[in-house]
Amino acid sequence: MNLLKQLCQIHAPSGNELGMKDFILDFVDREKDKWVCQPEIFHGHGLQDCIILKFGTPKTAAFAHMDSIGFTVRYQNQLVAIGGPEAHSGYKLVGEDSLGPIECELEVNKDHQLFYKFARAIDRGTDLVFKCEFEETKTEVTSCYLDNRLGVYNLLKLAETLENGVLVFSCWEEHGGGSIPFLVRFIYEKWQITQGLISDITWVTDGVYPGEGVVISIRDRNIPRKSYIKRIVQIANDSKIPYQLEVEASGSSDGRELQISPYPFDWCFIGAPEENVHSPEEKVHKHDIVCMLELYKVLMKNL
Amino acid sequence: MNLLKQLCQIHAPSGNELGMKDFILDFVDREKDKWVCQPEIFHGHGLQDCIILKFGTPKTAAFAHMDSIGFTVRYQNQLVAIGGPEAHSGYKLVGEDSLGPIECELEVNKDHQLFYKFARAIDRGTDLVFKCEFEETKTEVTSCYLDNRLGVYNLLKLAETLENGVLVFSCWEEHGGGSIPFLVRFIYEKWQITQGLISDITWVTDGVYPGEGVVISIRDRNIPRKSYIKRIVQIANDSKIPYQLEVEASGSSDGRELQISPYPFDWCFIGAPEENVHSPEEKVHKHDIVCMLELYKVLMKNL
Amino acid sequence: MNLLKQLCQIHAPSGNELGMKDFILDFVDREKDKWVCQPEIFHGHGLQDCIILKFGTPKTAAFAHMDSIGFTVRYQNQLVAIGGPEAHSGYKLVGEDSLGPIECELEVNKDHQLFYKFARAIDRGTDLVFKCEFEETKTEVTSCYLDNRLGVYNLLKLAETLENGVLVFSCWEEHGGGSIPFLVRFIYEKWQITQGLISDITWVTDGVYPGEGVVISIRDRNIPRKSYIKRIVQIANDSKIPYQLEVEASGSSDGRELQISPYPFDWCFIGAPEENVHSPEEKVHKHDIVCMLELYKVLMKNL
Repeated sequence: MNLLKQLCQIHAPSGNELGMKDFILDFVDREKDKWVCQPEIFHGHGLQDCIILKFGTPKTAAFAHMDSIGFTVRYQNQLVAIGGPEAHSGYKLVGEDSLGPIECELEVNKDHQLFYKFARAIDRGTDLVFKCEFEETKTEVTSCYLDNRLGVYNLLKLAETLENGVLVFSCWEEHGGGSIPFLVRFIYEKWQITQGLISDITWVTDGVYPGEGVVISIRDRNIPRKSYIKRIVQIANDSKIPYQLEVEASGSSDGRELQISPYPFDWCFIGAPEENVHSPEEKVHKHDIVCMLELYKVLMKNL
Repeated sequence: MNLLKQLCQIHAPSGNELGMKDFILDFVDREKDKWVCQPEIFHGHGLQDCIILKFGTPKTAAFAHMDSIGFTVRYQNQLVAIGGPEAHSGYKLVGEDSLGPIECELEVNKDHQLFYKFARAIDRGTDLVFKCEFEETKTEVTSCYLDNRLGVYNLLKLAETLENGVLVFSCWEEHGGGSIPFLVRFIYEKWQITQGLISDITWVTDGVYPGEGVVISIRDRNIPRKSYIKRIVQIANDSKIPYQLEVEASGSSDGRELQISPYPFDWCFIGAPEENVHSPEEKVHKHDIVCMLELYKVLMKNL
Repeated sequence: MNLLKQLCQIHAPSGNELGMKDFILDFVDREKDKWVCQPEIFHGHGLQDCIILKFGTPKTAAFAHMDSIGFTVRYQNQLVAIGGPEAHSGYKLVGEDSLGPIECELEVNKDHQLFYKFARAIDRGTDLVFKCEFEETKTEVTSCYLDNRLGVYNLLKLAETLENGVLVFSCWEEHGGGSIPFLVRFIYEKWQITQGLISDITWVTDGVYPGEGVVISIRDRNIPRKSYIKRIVQIANDSKIPYQLEVEASGSSDGRELQISPYPFDWCFIGAPEENVHSPEEKVHKHDIVCMLELYKVLMKNL
């Protein structure tokens, strides 16, 4: 879990994913010699701050977003949300501006307006994120930004043994999206791939429990193609890996942008469920993390 | 109206349009020898569950969505809406899961939450649709899903005499869209078409009446290009076919996705108006159905 | 300011930008011989009512939307908004239908429904705009539709000295968008440009004041890429041109469509701030207009 801990501590709110990109590129560079197959690495001009790893002859692409929720500093101590963070007075926020590192406190007034408390004014436009307090027990991990550093972690672990497939690290998922459209175009035009898996975090709900396996989401706000979901569930059944099915009315993911892209991409959201969503204390059961990785291994091979 | 009745009975909520696709392909295969021109038929890989029929040298594409509104089974008897169905306790819903066919009842509590009443639990993720009770009088047709089986019917009748044009059967229109973007890309890149007609159902309103002709929508939530609408209205005037003009603030269609696609597509929503929108008893005047088909014939020729 | 005055008087609500297109094409044709460089002019089929001017070897594209907010005539004296106009009883509206020119009055009832007061019924689907009452003092300009005729004006002045760059005049920005996707595709595929500037109007707020310089928006509802904004702010700093930084939670622009397009486009919203947004009396400080043009000159050269 050391890799996951490192990932959770990286400053990378939507629109400012550069730190995460650099970390991943560096990690891949250091680790890839130990992997079963060597990927082709795509990044830089034409991909903004995104990264694509291509292994072998790919049929399926797995997507994990690198960005997190957070806050943008406005003026007069005001903050503006990046994505949809849980916001309560007293949460610790960190960042950096022209005057140096910042550790300040979030304040929420009764009209739900957001402010920071800090000894000095912070530069306009500075982005702040939750301070990471990573905790691990025998069964659980608690930290801010498991959504979606766990999805990134999952792909980096998957990379160790992957023979065929594309791994995509995307931006802006928490706030309006906008990298998936050009990523899909790149992937489709290069390799004619039409199968997508969304490596991201789902929710513990009335029907999905921590520790009972990875979640395959049949739908959220968006509805993926039924025949694609059926194939995935069939493969999951055959694999004997513990999984749970989710049906939600709300929530969205990079899958939405795959669906509405000008390319005929199927998608399915598969990830470990978490409690305390979008708070500094997102909590995930380790068993579900293991199941998530196992299911991705099987799906990347058999889908 | 036998074809329309058959279409209304097919189970095809958004995301699960396979049954409708198979019906249409089968129908086209059986009927096409009687048609004035033989179309080229496109479906399968790269088009998901959509179908494209290409006649002659096309200048204009007409779009009808195959999917309907409905409900997804969650857990604990809960249902989640597919699209925006009218929901009242007592409506009959049908579907099928691993244990066999289902006919159950919709229940809506005072918080507008949706449930099913059935003798057993239904598999998570099963989709249910209104039970079809098709009725026909001398002047009117009443059924669930005239929106948009009537739009599909209109294109299949249009096919009988069509010489030049593209007919498109799309998915997901009722719930988030997502097939139009790749359909437009396909059509534009293959034939450089930029003219679209949306064969779909409009509403009876303060200014649009049943039996007074097909509706040409000047705008809904979206605003099509004025100069394109003007040309259509001019052709309608010259044709003497009874029509009505609609101006709406809300409502949307596949036209929206044509407008925001990366291809310079014009679009206009033209269809018969209905009462009891998105209920099990959608009602349309037969005269308006006739006018709809006539206007499409003229427009596919003259636009 | 005579050019700006002319631009403010042109009837061009979203979806009906033809008048503005003709004016700009005519203006360019008349003026271009005086310009430092001769642009290549793109318009007509495949670009709907949009215009693209290409100068030299472009690295950056600047976008100004030609459309304005307004009202569509429904039936029974009802009006439907185009975009989000400020609506108060007594505002004067102008337009034209089959019976001739119209100057009528807006009426807003207590339920915020919109009506027109006029001696006769107006043709269904007619679009109306605010009557232009352009006023100029030594320091300020007041008129309807400074948003975004000022953005258009800025590009037409920029054209006088531009050596390398693309100027884009877009449609529908105020109401749902839909021209940027095909414009981006055109620009990217022709010249591989990935840098965008949004020449549009920002707001006077708690942190942005009239007369204190052009506004560089760090974010609005959408969040552009941080590293791109940083480069722009650095160039602005070096230039010594007075500017202000804005951070907003709401508001959007053509930038949003650049971000979510299938092309890897960066964007930044840069424009003069105004008071009385979307009313008949939008007000902008002349100093900010001057700063806006100066900053665009520097950015088109150095970005």
